[in-house]
Amino acid sequence: MSPKHVAIVGATGAVGRTLLSILAERRFPVGRLTLLATSRSAGERVLALGDEHPVHEVTPERLEGHDFVFFSAGTDGARRWAPAAVERGAVVIDNSYAFRMEPGIPLVVPEVNGHALGPEARLIANPNCSTIQLVLVLAPIARHVGLERIVVSTYQSVSGTGIEALGELESQVAGDARGVVPEPRVYPHPIAFNVVPQVDEFVDGGYTREERKLVDETRKILEQPELRLTATTVRVPVRVAHSEAVNLSLSRSVSAAEARAWLAQAPGVVVVDDPARSAYPTPLAAAGRDEAFVGRIRVDESQPAGLDLWISCDNLRKGAALNAVQIAEQVLARSPAPTGRAS
Amino acid sequence: MSPKHVAIVGATGAVGRTLLSILAERRFPVGRLTLLATSRSAGERVLALGDEHPVHEVTPERLEGHDFVFFSAGTDGARRWAPAAVERGAVVIDNSYAFRMEPGIPLVVPEVNGHALGPEARLIANPNCSTIQLVLVLAPIARHVGLERIVVSTYQSVSGTGIEALGELESQVAGDARGVVPEPRVYPHPIAFNVVPQVDEFVDGGYTREERKLVDETRKILEQPELRLTATTVRVPVRVAHSEAVNLSLSRSVSAAEARAWLAQAPGVVVVDDPARSAYPTPLAAAGRDEAFVGRIRVDESQPAGLDLWISCDNLRKGAALNAVQIAEQVLARSPAPTGRAS
Repeated sequence: MSPKHVAIVGATGAVGRTLLSILAERRFPVGRLTLLATSRSAGERVLALGDEHPVHEVTPERLEGHDFVFFSAGTDGARRWAPAAVERGAVVIDNSYAFRMEPGIPLVVPEVNGHALGPEARLIANPNCSTIQLVLVLAPIARHVGLERIVVSTYQSVSGTGIEALGELESQVAGDARGVVPEPRVYPHPIAFNVVPQVDEFVDGGYTREERKLVDETRKILEQPELRLTATTVRVPVRVAHSEAVNLSLSRSVSAAEARAWLAQAPGVVVVDDPARSAYPTPLAAAGRDEAFVGRIRVDESQPAGLDLWISCDNLRKGAALNAVQIAEQVLARSPAPTGRAS
Repeated sequence: MSPKHVAIVGATGAVGRTLLSILAERRFPVGRLTLLATSRSAGERVLALGDEHPVHEVTPERLEGHDFVFFSAGTDGARRWAPAAVERGAVVIDNSYAFRMEPGIPLVVPEVNGHALGPEARLIANPNCSTIQLVLVLAPIARHVGLERIVVSTYQSVSGTGIEALGELESQVAGDARGVVPEPRVYPHPIAFNVVPQVDEFVDGGYTREERKLVDETRKILEQPELRLTATTVRVPVRVAHSEAVNLSLSRSVSAAEARAWLAQAPGVVVVDDPARSAYPTPLAAAGRDEAFVGRIRVDESQPAGLDLWISCDNLRKGAALNAVQIAEQVLARSPAPTGRAS
């Protein structure tokens, strides 16, 4: 395959750096690599794919001449620059929520709804981290039985907020050992030795944006616009990998063994479920791995037909960068290949 | 009130030490104080109520002559010694699950079901920490509306396991800073910078004992033996105070404002719920406090009549020691006063 010209907007962030690792790991056919960021990070140099690359400030001219532009630059960055990149012929894969809920914009987890990625799509939204791991597990179940209602409680790592939040956790842990915990700056409350039941800002009805994303995006990806789903999203002092306690109300009763069998065959999912050996997913074990890990699968006796289960998944990899690269791989595999640069 | 002779079995544990603080804080009328423990801790000396006290190995003779014996000595310790203490005339308040589900044994949270503590009760069970904070919040709601079904996900602190677990968290955090994390011994997986979806041992149907306790004890305390309730219990790297994400299905729709008003008047409960100021309970803020803190109260739109909410509560205080002392205070207030020692 001919090398592709690739740009990353937000190259110095937690997801941007993971993108660079994953492009290398998966031998994505990168020809020219352009690293872009806001003016704050421009001028840095980043080691990637065996070379040191300068980080430039994003401008319309810098977006010219790429096959793929990965955006991990927040909602503002995406709204400002993603359309310009598309106009200049690139396929854009955006990790922010700027375009996710727009009709006509594909919101894709390749293992779940790769079919949503039509041959013409040039702006593709990468779902929210906590959504990706949830739909990876829901979809294989939904193929066999109706999803009546879902209750999710999350245990989300600080890397989901970004590199600054990782630094805040470290400095609070170090401060704790010295007896002086620095004031929180990234989060509204200390995160070390604490849990904070707020992820992202509050929007309406007492819900946070993260909770709304989880509901709206799951409905769009599963193509069930009326799916009944509620969530409480919570930050925990974990560095990488989000976890979710999930309660499912189903259209008919399902045994834990049935659910395990469906999930064991699901792409991108690994079942870790042997209570006798204390085997179940944890974020520490999921960090650095590509799959969503699911366990604690059991019949919920509080309803006629329900299951409880537990999911852990690396939020930087499958929850963000890996899924974006998989989308790009799917674009490459579709024919004709993107012709933006040549046209 | 005449001073009471008090013994604590398990005086050197996390709950035992908190019991001693709370007896002092609340000016419980302690006359003679006897500190007991297993042979492993016997011989230690503990500073309590302004004096240094020796810790003796528990024997039937040592249990003689007390008005109150507080047990925080695990299930084995309670099964072995609590009946002997009752036979010797004491009122026993046991913090283990040994007797909680026995018919005829009161399982009491004074603010919720103080009436269950009959005038004759001499062996009284203190509920599980994660149950106490849940029923404190459920009871005021259940007085106004039917509880149809409850889904709970917990975020439980390591002090619930005991002092050894606190040490394990500290040593793993310290090891992490040096790049060498010691092998877990108390928990089956590392707890520092991780979450572990197992609290207590696995019992049946894929559920842990903690999950079964939460279901069974809530039913008994709320006197709703058929209450539909499911739980996933999870350990988090927090030192003190458990949190719970709770989803309620109700018999009729309730606004967040209504629920807040009911909870604001509930004894032992404090509403902290102002999203605009990022005000909600966290375990760090609940640690060292006496009440169950509740927030994130909002209508669950995934069902016709439901609420989501979030609770944090100090598991050593209200979740264990404080509740036990409140039970003893209620016993003192009943007439006639306990006459075990005099009879």
